[in-house]
Amino acid sequence: MNAIADQHKGQESESLLDRYVKVRRQTEALCEPLAIEDYQVQPMDDASPPKWHIAHVTWFFETFILKQLQPGYREFHPQFEYLFNSYYNGVGQPYPRPRRGFLSRPTLDEVLAYRSHVDDAMTDLLGTADNTDVLTRTELGLNHEQQHQELLLTDLKYNLGNNPLKPEYVAANTIATNSTPLTFRAYEGGIREIGATGEEAFTFDNELPRHQVLTTDFELAERPVSNGEFIEFIEDGGYERHELWLSDGWAHLNSLHENRWQGPLYWRVKDGQYFNYSLSGGENPVDASAPVCHVSGYEADAFARWKGCRLPTEPEWEVAAAECAISGNFVESRQFHPCGTPADADGLQQIYGDVWEWTSSAYGPYPGFKPLAGQLGEYNGKFMANQLVLRGGSCATPHDHIRSTYRNFFYPPDRWQFSGIRLARDPQ
Amino acid sequence: MNAIADQHKGQESESLLDRYVKVRRQTEALCEPLAIEDYQVQPMDDASPPKWHIAHVTWFFETFILKQLQPGYREFHPQFEYLFNSYYNGVGQPYPRPRRGFLSRPTLDEVLAYRSHVDDAMTDLLGTADNTDVLTRTELGLNHEQQHQELLLTDLKYNLGNNPLKPEYVAANTIATNSTPLTFRAYEGGIREIGATGEEAFTFDNELPRHQVLTTDFELAERPVSNGEFIEFIEDGGYERHELWLSDGWAHLNSLHENRWQGPLYWRVKDGQYFNYSLSGGENPVDASAPVCHVSGYEADAFARWKGCRLPTEPEWEVAAAECAISGNFVESRQFHPCGTPADADGLQQIYGDVWEWTSSAYGPYPGFKPLAGQLGEYNGKFMANQLVLRGGSCATPHDHIRSTYRNFFYPPDRWQFSGIRLARDPQ
Amino acid sequence: MNAIADQHKGQESESLLDRYVKVRRQTEALCEPLAIEDYQVQPMDDASPPKWHIAHVTWFFETFILKQLQPGYREFHPQFEYLFNSYYNGVGQPYPRPRRGFLSRPTLDEVLAYRSHVDDAMTDLLGTADNTDVLTRTELGLNHEQQHQELLLTDLKYNLGNNPLKPEYVAANTIATNSTPLTFRAYEGGIREIGATGEEAFTFDNELPRHQVLTTDFELAERPVSNGEFIEFIEDGGYERHELWLSDGWAHLNSLHENRWQGPLYWRVKDGQYFNYSLSGGENPVDASAPVCHVSGYEADAFARWKGCRLPTEPEWEVAAAECAISGNFVESRQFHPCGTPADADGLQQIYGDVWEWTSSAYGPYPGFKPLAGQLGEYNGKFMANQLVLRGGSCATPHDHIRSTYRNFFYPPDRWQFSGIRLARDPQ
Amino acid sequence: MNAIADQHKGQESESLLDRYVKVRRQTEALCEPLAIEDYQVQPMDDASPPKWHIAHVTWFFETFILKQLQPGYREFHPQFEYLFNSYYNGVGQPYPRPRRGFLSRPTLDEVLAYRSHVDDAMTDLLGTADNTDVLTRTELGLNHEQQHQELLLTDLKYNLGNNPLKPEYVAANTIATNSTPLTFRAYEGGIREIGATGEEAFTFDNELPRHQVLTTDFELAERPVSNGEFIEFIEDGGYERHELWLSDGWAHLNSLHENRWQGPLYWRVKDGQYFNYSLSGGENPVDASAPVCHVSGYEADAFARWKGCRLPTEPEWEVAAAECAISGNFVESRQFHPCGTPADADGLQQIYGDVWEWTSSAYGPYPGFKPLAGQLGEYNGKFMANQLVLRGGSCATPHDHIRSTYRNFFYPPDRWQFSGIRLARDPQ
Repeated sequence: MNAIADQHKGQESESLLDRYVKVRRQTEALCEPLAIEDYQVQPMDDASPPKWHIAHVTWFFETFILKQLQPGYREFHPQFEYLFNSYYNGVGQPYPRPRRGFLSRPTLDEVLAYRSHVDDAMTDLLGTADNTDVLTRTELGLNHEQQHQELLLTDLKYNLGNNPLKPEYVAANTIATNSTPLTFRAYEGGIREIGATGEEAFTFDNELPRHQVLTTDFELAERPVSNGEFIEFIEDGGYERHELWLSDGWAHLNSLHENRWQGPLYWRVKDGQYFNYSLSGGENPVDASAPVCHVSGYEADAFARWKGCRLPTEPEWEVAAAECAISGNFVESRQFHPCGTPADADGLQQIYGDVWEWTSSAYGPYPGFKPLAGQLGEYNGKFMANQLVLRGGSCATPHDHIRSTYRNFFYPPDRWQFSGIRLARDPQ
Repeated sequence: MNAIADQHKGQESESLLDRYVKVRRQTEALCEPLAIEDYQVQPMDDASPPKWHIAHVTWFFETFILKQLQPGYREFHPQFEYLFNSYYNGVGQPYPRPRRGFLSRPTLDEVLAYRSHVDDAMTDLLGTADNTDVLTRTELGLNHEQQHQELLLTDLKYNLGNNPLKPEYVAANTIATNSTPLTFRAYEGGIREIGATGEEAFTFDNELPRHQVLTTDFELAERPVSNGEFIEFIEDGGYERHELWLSDGWAHLNSLHENRWQGPLYWRVKDGQYFNYSLSGGENPVDASAPVCHVSGYEADAFARWKGCRLPTEPEWEVAAAECAISGNFVESRQFHPCGTPADADGLQQIYGDVWEWTSSAYGPYPGFKPLAGQLGEYNGKFMANQLVLRGGSCATPHDHIRSTYRNFFYPPDRWQFSGIRLARDPQ
Repeated sequence: MNAIADQHKGQESESLLDRYVKVRRQTEALCEPLAIEDYQVQPMDDASPPKWHIAHVTWFFETFILKQLQPGYREFHPQFEYLFNSYYNGVGQPYPRPRRGFLSRPTLDEVLAYRSHVDDAMTDLLGTADNTDVLTRTELGLNHEQQHQELLLTDLKYNLGNNPLKPEYVAANTIATNSTPLTFRAYEGGIREIGATGEEAFTFDNELPRHQVLTTDFELAERPVSNGEFIEFIEDGGYERHELWLSDGWAHLNSLHENRWQGPLYWRVKDGQYFNYSLSGGENPVDASAPVCHVSGYEADAFARWKGCRLPTEPEWEVAAAECAISGNFVESRQFHPCGTPADADGLQQIYGDVWEWTSSAYGPYPGFKPLAGQLGEYNGKFMANQLVLRGGSCATPHDHIRSTYRNFFYPPDRWQFSGIRLARDPQ
Repeated sequence: MNAIADQHKGQESESLLDRYVKVRRQTEALCEPLAIEDYQVQPMDDASPPKWHIAHVTWFFETFILKQLQPGYREFHPQFEYLFNSYYNGVGQPYPRPRRGFLSRPTLDEVLAYRSHVDDAMTDLLGTADNTDVLTRTELGLNHEQQHQELLLTDLKYNLGNNPLKPEYVAANTIATNSTPLTFRAYEGGIREIGATGEEAFTFDNELPRHQVLTTDFELAERPVSNGEFIEFIEDGGYERHELWLSDGWAHLNSLHENRWQGPLYWRVKDGQYFNYSLSGGENPVDASAPVCHVSGYEADAFARWKGCRLPTEPEWEVAAAECAISGNFVESRQFHPCGTPADADGLQQIYGDVWEWTSSAYGPYPGFKPLAGQLGEYNGKFMANQLVLRGGSCATPHDHIRSTYRNFFYPPDRWQFSGIRLARDPQ
C-alpha cells in the first residue's frame, strides 16, 4: 500500500479528509430510516446490530490510528476497546460476538457521541498529518467502514425480513426490467494475470500480489441467473434431489428439519405465488427477470449442476471482469435489491453490483501473500479456511468500493448476503 | 373465583377500574428509568424484553377480555395476537419465545399506542360492566400484569447486570442493616390446612383448593441465609465438593465449563473481595448481612446440606408463613435488592419480600385441583412438571400481590429471579 | 438395615452365601442368549452395554466389600475401579457414562474372569464372615445386582429393538390373555402409613422411614391401561393435541422433529396395523389386551388427562398395593413382555409385575430420610431431583426384588424401561 | 478407466481374480489380532466399526457388480443393502452413520458368511467375465477395499488409543531411526502437468484429467516435520498463541473446553515426558526423530506459520513427488506407526508412506472433471467442499495403493488419520 501513501502524503491529505467525511456521513445517511430499536437487534450471531457496526467502525479509527499515532489522544471510554473489538486478538480478547445485541448500553446517543469524538480527533489529525501510517490506515479504515455499510444493510435486512410484520426500510423504488435470454461468452485459456499490483489507490492485502494464473478455455454466462430460472429449479424438485447437491450441502439441508430450505432466503409461497422480501418495499411478488439473490454456495452449486454448468473459478471470474467497466446497481441507486438486465443488454452484464457471485474457489492466499504487519495482520489472512470467494459487489456495495480484484468470502451455507449465481461452463 | 366476582359486581366495578389504572400506571412507572434500547433486549431465552412484557400484558386484556367479551371491539393490529402470545396454544401457535428480542418492530411508540388503545377500551368496558367474566378476568389480568412487573425487573437485571458497563437502573438507596444470628423456630407437626379457600379477593387456580396436609415437627430458620453465610460455604469449597450436590446439580455445574458457577449470579471476586450487581447502584461490595440472592435450587440445596439442614417443604413454609403479617421489602421500597434483617428483629423475619425462598417441593396440583376453563386453563396447570415451588415474594414483587398461599415455580437450575434460601431442619 | 444384619449374623450367613450364588448365577443365565457383540453395545447414553453391567455389579462387591472389609484382598485390575464405577464420586471420578460402549477391552472373557475372581473372594468371605458391614453390604450388593439384571434387559431391548433386523432375545412365549373392562376401586382417605420400617429383610435407604401420609378419598383402576385403550388415544389425535400435554412434554415432543413420537417406544405402523417389538419373539402385532408399555411420564400424564383421570400419587399407590399379594408377571416367567389380565380377574390386578406404573409424585426424601453413611450414601439420595416415582416392578424384575414400598424413579421423558400406566381419579 | 478395462479383458481376467483374492485376504489378515468386541465399536461418528468396514466393502461388490452385472445372483440378505450402504443415496437412504456401532447383529460370524457368499459369487464371475464393467468395477472395488483397510486401522486405533487400558494391536516392532536436519529442496516454477492420464492401471475419477498447472518457484522440506520439532512448537506456546492460528482453528480449539488440544492426538504428558499411543506396542515415549502424526490441518497450518513456512499446495506436492520412487513405510512394514528418516537419507525423503501430508489446497474438481456415471458418481465428487487435500499415503496404506496423483481429503479439524506435516516455503 505504498502507492496510496505516496499519493496522499502532503497536499493530498486534504482530499483524504474530504473522503473521510464523505464515507462517515454515508454511514449515517444509511441509518436515517432506522428506529432506535432497529439499531439494537442481532437476529443471528452473524448479523450484528447496526449500533454495534457504527461503534465498531469508529473503534477501528480510534484503536489503530488515534491511540497509536496521535500523541495526546484521550480515549472516549475505557471499556469500548473491549466492547467494540470484532476479532482482533492482538488488541485483546473481544467481547463475545453472539452477545453484541445484548448491549443496550452504551445507548445510540452515547455511540453517536463516540463517533463525534473520534471524528473530531480524526479531523484534527488528517488536517495536519504527514505520516504514511496515518494515511494508509485511514484509507484502510474507510474501506473497512464501507464494508460495514454493506453488512449493516444485510444484517438489518435479516432482522426486518424475518419480522412477521415485514417492515420496509425504504419505500419501493421500482425499476422496470426485462428478461433477456441466458447466453454465454467464450474466453480463451492461457496464462493470465490476476490480483492487485500494489499501485492502486487502495487494495486489501488479500488481493496482493498480482500473479499469473493458468486458465483453460471457458464460457461465462452473460448475466446472473434469474429468479425465473431459479423457480424452474425449485419446481423441478431441485431441493429434493440429492444427486444435485454436494454431500455437505445435502446434510446441511436435512439438518434444518422443518425449516428445510424450499427456496432462497426471504422467499415464501402464498397461494401458489412466490413472494420475496426487499429492503425497498417489503414483501412483494418475486420479479422473475431479476437476479436470484440470497442463495448459499450450496444452492448455487446445486443449481449449476442442475443446469449442466458449474460455478466459475476465481481466476475465470476476474479475467472476464477485468475487461468490464465498473458500473451497475450499487448502493447509490437506493434500490437495495437486485434488478433485471436492461432490455438492450449486450456482452457481459451485471458483473458488478446487484449480487455477489459465488465462485468455486476456496478463499486462500495468493502465491507470496503477506498479511499486513502487526495487529492489522488479522484483518484478512486468518480467515483463509473453509470459505468460498464471492466476487463483483452487490446492490448494497458502495460503487467506489468495488474493483475487479476485490475478494469477498463467506461459508458455503451462508445466504444472508446479497449472494447470487453466475454460471460458467467448459466449451461445448 | 366467585368471591371476587361477587365483590366487584355492581358498585364495586368502579374500584376495579381504579385498580386497573393503578396497576397499569405502575408498569409504566417501573419503565421510567429505561432507555429505548433497554426495552428491546432479550439477553437469554428466559429473559424477555421489557417491550415484549408491556405488550404481552396488554395482549392479555385484549385477547381474553376485549375480543371475547366486548362486542364491537376493534383489534389494534391483526398480527399482535400472534406476536405477543406467550404460550397459549389454545389461542394459536405463539411467536417463538427465543426470538422476542429480535422484534425491533413494533417500536416502543407503537407498543405504547397499543397500550393506550387497550386502556381506552378497558376503561369503557369497566365503567359499565356487570359481567362476572369481565370482572374476574380483569382481576386475573391485573395479577398477571403484576407478575410481569416482577419479570420485567428480573429480565432487565439480567441484561444490565451482564453488561460489562454495569449500568444501574436507579441510584443506590442504601439501607443500613445489621447481622443477626441464625436461629430456628420450632413448629409442631400434625394435620394442617394450606391453600386458598376461594373466598379471597383473588387467587390463582394453582392455590386451590384449600386442603389438609400432614407435617411432622420441624424447625424453620428465623431469617433467610445471609451473604456472609454463603461466603463461608464458598470458602469451604462448596462449589468443589460433589458430596454436597444433587447429581443433576453437579452435572449441570460441570457442564458449564469455564463458566462454572463460583458464587451466586451477579457476583464476582476482585482482589479477594466479593462484589455483586444491584439494580440500585450497580456493582458494589457484597453486604454480608443481606440475604443471599440469585441462587439456583441446586445451590440452595447444596448450601442446606453443607449446613446440616434442608430446604423447607411447601406445606411447612405455608404453615409458618400463615401466622405472619405480610410486610417486608417489596418493590414499593424501591430498593430492588434484598436487605438485611432489622437489628431488633424478633420471630420469623423476612418471610415475605426480599427473596423468593426455594422449597424442596415439586410444583404439582393440589388434591382436587381444576385448571381454569377454556384457554385460560393454560395459565398455570400445564407447568406442573420439573419445577420447584418458591414462596414469599421478593424485593421485586408488588406488596399487594403476595400472600401466604402464593405459589411461584422455577426450574432447579434457574437463578435469574430474586431467589434465596430459608433453612429448615428436623427437630434436634 | 440393622434387621437384616441381625438376621444374617452367625448361622444365617450360610444362606446369604446361597443367595449370593443364586443371584450371581441368575445374571449369567440372563446373558445366555447373547452373542458376544450384544454384550458390547450402548445404543444410547442411558442404555449401558451388558458387559459393563456384569462388570459393574462385580465392581460393587469388590469396591465396597472386598477392598474395604477383606484384609489381604488382591484387586483384580488397577484400572477397573475407574472403568466400572458408575457414579460414585466418593470412590473417584468415574469413566464417562456415554463412553461405556467404546470399551472393547477388557473383553467379555476378561470380565468373566473378573467375576470369577470376585466370586471366589466373596465365597471365602461369606463362608466365615461375622461382620455386620459385610452382611448388609452383601445384601445391598445382591439387590443392586438384581436392579442391573432388569437394566441389562431394558438396555439390551433398546439395542435389539432398534436394530432393523429386529432380532429376538428368546423365542415367543405366547400367553393367551383376555381383555377385561376398565373398572375402578374406591379407597377411603385418611392418615395412612407408607414406607419401610427397617425391620424388613432388606430395603433401600430411600424407602425409609415409615411415616404417616394423608390421602383424600380416591379411586384406582383395577388393571393397567391396555394397548387397545392407548390405540384409541392415538387415533383420537392424542399426540397432536397440545391441550392434553404438560408444557414440558409438548416441547419435548416437538423437539424430536421427524422422530416425533407417534406411539409408545418400539411401536410402528405397517399397512394400518400396529406392531411392537418384544424381547420374546421380536416384532409382532400389538396385543390389544396387554398393558401398554414403554410410555414416558409425559405420555402417561397426557393419556390420563385424555381419559378424564390422573396418575396416582405415590402414597395412593402404596396404600392400595400394600393390601395385595406380590405375584404377577416377573422375570421368572420368561415372558420379558407384559401380558393381559386373566379373564377371571377380580379386584386390583397386575399391581406387581408387567409394567412399572408412573406416579405423579416427584422422587424425594421421606420425612427424616437419611442416606447411607459414607460412599454408599450416593446410592439413592443424590438422585432426588427432576425424577418421578414409578412403582410395582415389571416383567423384567425379579420376583423377590419387589415389594409395596419399593421406589423406582426415572425422568419424565424416559421410556426405555417397561413403564406403563395405572389410572387414578377423584371420587366421581 | 478404459486402460484398465483393456488390460484386464480376456486372458488378464485371471490375474484380476488373483488380485481379488489377495486384497480380500489382506483385509482378513489385518483383522487377525482383533477380539470380537473390537469389531463392534464405533468410538466416534467418523470411526466406523471394523465389522461394518468388512461388511461394507463386501456390499460394494454385491451392490455394484453382482446385483447389477451377474444374472441370477441371489442376494445374501434383503436388509444388508440398507445396513451397509455408506453414503450412496442413489442406492437408497443409508442406515445412519453414527449408529453403525449399535448393530450387534448381524454378528461377526454372519458378516464373515456374507463375505464368503460374495467371494464365491465374485470368484465365479471373475473366472469367466469378459465384461468391461465387471472388470473396471472390480478394480474399483479392490481399491475401495484398500481404502477401508486403512480406515479400519485408523478407526481401530481411535478405539484402542482412547481406551484407558491402552491395549496394543500388535507388539512393538521397533526400528532404530536417526534425526536428520530439516533441509529444503528448491523447485523451479512454471507450467507443469499433474493428475492422471487415464492410461494408468487404475486411478480414481478425482485424479483425472491430467492438466497443466502453473507453479511459482518453491522449496519443499526434504523430510516431514518430526516429533522433536513439534515438541518445540508446543513448548514455545504453540497452542496458546492465537496469532499462529487460522481463525476457525482457534475457535475450534477453544470450543473444546477442558479437552482443548495440548498436543497431537494420542499424546499425553506424564511427569514432564511426552508419551504417545501406537498400534504397535501401545503407549510409549514419543520418538523425537519420527514424523509427527495425528495433527489436524489447523495444527499443521499453525506449526508451519510458527516455523516461518507454509504448507505446500497440491500441485507443488505432486510436482515434487512425481520424481520420487514409491517406496517407504507402508502397511506391509507392519510398523503401523511412522518412523524416522534413515541416517543416510539424501534428497526428498518419506514423501510416500509414514504420514499423509496436509496441503493447503481445498479438495475440488480438476478442470474438466467428470464423476463416474450412475450411482458410482457419488464415490468422490460430492465431497468436494470444505475439505483439504492430503497426499502421499501413510504407514497404514497398502504399498500398491498409492501413487503421485493420489488425492486424499479430510476436514481441517480431523486428526484421527495418520496425518502429518511437510513444510514448504517460498524461495528465501
